[in-house]
Amino acid sequence: MNDCPVPLSRYDRVAMGHGGGGRLTAELIERLFLRAYGNEVVGALEDQAVVPAPGQRIAITTDAFVVRPLFFPGGDIGKLAVCGTVNDLAVGGARPLYLTAAFVLEEGFPLADLERIALSMRDACALAGVRLVAGDTKVVERGKGDGVYLTTTGVGVVPDDLRLSIAAARPGDRILVSGPVGDHGIAILALREGIDLETELASDCAPVIETAQSLLAAAPGLRCMRDPTRGGLATVLCELAVASSVGVHLDERAVPVRDEVRGACELLGLDPLYVACDGRLVAVIPPDQADSALAALRVRDPAAALVGAVVDAPTGQVTATTVAGGERLVPMLAGEQLPRIC
Amino acid sequence: MNDCPVPLSRYDRVAMGHGGGGRLTAELIERLFLRAYGNEVVGALEDQAVVPAPGQRIAITTDAFVVRPLFFPGGDIGKLAVCGTVNDLAVGGARPLYLTAAFVLEEGFPLADLERIALSMRDACALAGVRLVAGDTKVVERGKGDGVYLTTTGVGVVPDDLRLSIAAARPGDRILVSGPVGDHGIAILALREGIDLETELASDCAPVIETAQSLLAAAPGLRCMRDPTRGGLATVLCELAVASSVGVHLDERAVPVRDEVRGACELLGLDPLYVACDGRLVAVIPPDQADSALAALRVRDPAAALVGAVVDAPTGQVTATTVAGGERLVPMLAGEQLPRIC
Repeated sequence: MNDCPVPLSRYDRVAMGHGGGGRLTAELIERLFLRAYGNEVVGALEDQAVVPAPGQRIAITTDAFVVRPLFFPGGDIGKLAVCGTVNDLAVGGARPLYLTAAFVLEEGFPLADLERIALSMRDACALAGVRLVAGDTKVVERGKGDGVYLTTTGVGVVPDDLRLSIAAARPGDRILVSGPVGDHGIAILALREGIDLETELASDCAPVIETAQSLLAAAPGLRCMRDPTRGGLATVLCELAVASSVGVHLDERAVPVRDEVRGACELLGLDPLYVACDGRLVAVIPPDQADSALAALRVRDPAAALVGAVVDAPTGQVTATTVAGGERLVPMLAGEQLPRIC
Repeated sequence: MNDCPVPLSRYDRVAMGHGGGGRLTAELIERLFLRAYGNEVVGALEDQAVVPAPGQRIAITTDAFVVRPLFFPGGDIGKLAVCGTVNDLAVGGARPLYLTAAFVLEEGFPLADLERIALSMRDACALAGVRLVAGDTKVVERGKGDGVYLTTTGVGVVPDDLRLSIAAARPGDRILVSGPVGDHGIAILALREGIDLETELASDCAPVIETAQSLLAAAPGLRCMRDPTRGGLATVLCELAVASSVGVHLDERAVPVRDEVRGACELLGLDPLYVACDGRLVAVIPPDQADSALAALRVRDPAAALVGAVVDAPTGQVTATTVAGGERLVPMLAGEQLPRIC
């Protein structure tokens, strides 16, 4: 946290030359990144990683991370990037295998902080069972970035017979969430805005790979899964309603929301349905498998809940029974409640 | 070039909400990105792309692009990103298949320029024979970026029996370059610094996939290939000398450099050996296959040349016969000559 434990020549901050492809770049890679998460593939320092591809189909996803601040309760941009990317594979039923990481660093960024991020990525990769196999580092001038932007790309394998799709929902299907919603967004926002929540609310940032696999086992008719990040649960359901040409009805009273998240949302005029999670799943399940799916989720988190159902109409729209017992429309937001949340 | 031909509601510039995951993000994806390079995979709008993986081994590479300015003679950040990424696969002997793209956009960036970049990526993907299968878009506040940063990740397939490595060079091997060096770096720098080169020098930005494949066919004993981007030809040779524990001797008189590149380098005090290319290959070839390899390169560019050889000593170092006929050391630069060249 104080001095960079890996002295890089005389540098303790990012210099333009660290992005130049010369000796300083080589030092940064060898002494910081390879020490943090080196393995025989990324350590070979070729222009590309060559890895086995078991199975016939691969899944690929990419995400840019611009979260502010970089470090927050429950995680940091590195853990967030690894979890966010493996989760995008996991919700497709894929087994994540490989990850790449590309940094855009701002000149002057402390190398000790960069190392903290790299070590956090190493730990998250170990937890998720993925290997970081390729990377890149560029440096931009002071005032042309914001410390660190990080893009991760994940590659995994998908069973040949698995067909999950956000367009596959049918009226009667049940909608499940795997745990309380909004923790990530409110943890970040409270830190950013200096709000005292009076409790230790941490981001829910975590891999959902095993949760996804347990759902696939418990509910073989599973239509689709999503991780409700930017835009939260509401945005996932709006996308589902449009893609499947169905209606979605949500029971807000059944949606698990922590007291401190609900309190902070009231204080800030936010709707918890739109606040980002980073370690939760939303699943659409045929009605006859909903009980076993919910039981599988509750093994991992007792707060997992059945929160709604797919309905005939109005197609393309999400309606909800409110906490007060009324009915309302849950619209697709134009922009977002919380910029730079991931 | 003037107005954005795809009106995005009332917006002609990037707004924070375009990164929020809501309706504005959906509009940006549907009306700009999908129109530019939509296909059935990326158009499915799942959180991950699922694609076939022919062959047993896949190659993966990632690159962040921060080039300034975004548009330059011979290309732009989009073409550069596609070519740079497929080339990193091609030099490993891989056939590039899939690409992902993640944008970090600065609030206020003109959407018409973003569309130009997306269309340029589409054209470069078509030229390279790759499919763009996944993407992401984030927006940062004005003054926290520089228009567009773009990270692309490429996935390709590699024949099972192919073993290329920068650690495989042996004394006696020949070193070939596929065309004139330094065009990309000088084209960018001339534009950035307002230097009139009196000729139309364009970046050499282009895929080298077919060139790489033709080399593999002409020289089955090929040790390795590299594309000399950041740090130029000299940096590739320095990395080769270290990785293979050999010496490298370069004949500077044989290195193809355009007159305008040499002239600009003299004016600016730059060494063309260190200036970035973006559509060239450096190849290390066993001596008995050097002639057929050079012939294969010259089919595509008559300027391709034999520029040096791998030698016993001094190990880990690059020496050169200069244009004037003297001898010198070609060191690994600490930083770089030209920041934000790619």
